[in-house]
Amino acid sequence: MSEDIKFLDIAYEEALKAYEKDEVPIGAVIVKDGEIIGKGHNQRIEKNNALYHAEIVAIEEACRNTGSWRLDGCTLYVTVEPCVMCAGAIMQSRIKKVVFGALDQKGGAVVSKYRLFDDGKLPFKVDYSLINYEKASIILKDFFLNKRRVSRER
Amino acid sequence: MSEDIKFLDIAYEEALKAYEKDEVPIGAVIVKDGEIIGKGHNQRIEKNNALYHAEIVAIEEACRNTGSWRLDGCTLYVTVEPCVMCAGAIMQSRIKKVVFGALDQKGGAVVSKYRLFDDGKLPFKVDYSLINYEKASIILKDFFLNKRRVSRER
Repeated sequence: MSEDIKFLDIAYEEALKAYEKDEVPIGAVIVKDGEIIGKGHNQRIEKNNALYHAEIVAIEEACRNTGSWRLDGCTLYVTVEPCVMCAGAIMQSRIKKVVFGALDQKGGAVVSKYRLFDDGKLPFKVDYSLINYEKASIILKDFFLNKRRVSRER
Repeated sequence: MSEDIKFLDIAYEEALKAYEKDEVPIGAVIVKDGEIIGKGHNQRIEKNNALYHAEIVAIEEACRNTGSWRLDGCTLYVTVEPCVMCAGAIMQSRIKKVVFGALDQKGGAVVSKYRLFDDGKLPFKVDYSLINYEKASIILKDFFLNKRRVSRER
């Protein structure tokens, strides 16, 4: 558990980087045998590409670092529940486990809107664990609150 | 309809490129106002990255070419029904319509295993059309048949 918090803290540092760039503040980190092999934060606007969610950026880095498309035995820590695209990318990459720090009730694909990892429809097996990591949802709420305030002031 | 076949033919040419590289032969092309703005074929092994499905490669190219993460008004043509990851990427990129040439009964996320584009669970609206484009499934069957034969001969 303290191991989980340690890596969620690092994912949260990534989320802070996104926040500073005015991107939706979500961060992710991929761990193999206790070592970080990939990190990422949401860069959709920076990269002009909707695919660059935190999880995708972290998977790309981990594949580059390991030289393999298979991330067997890896755990992905992400501040918020993955969306459909990212849950699909996690399965395609053969990541073993996902730990996330908050639900995404509008678009989460692990437990909220879909249960892609355990509905038995696909041949991929991904374990997951939801940990109540309050900072992950607080920073998101703060981000969208600021967005609305700025758009009202305009 | 003949427009659809024209662009599926170009997606099929992409699938042939994947076949020649010993990658699962799937190809995709993205069209805006009648012009091709992105093409791609499956490059999972070549790029050492499970994310590089044909649709993802095509979306990346289209975003680079347009300088925007939003692919509003675009149609994506792909030889085979998209998987969960690619269907998610299509929604994230705001692609308007997907035309595909064959079902993927084991992993398709548009009509086969999930109905991500029209089950009403997410706030994205993507139209789709399945066209019976036989070459798309023939090349896939041929690919996997050869794979099995090679693995028996070893």
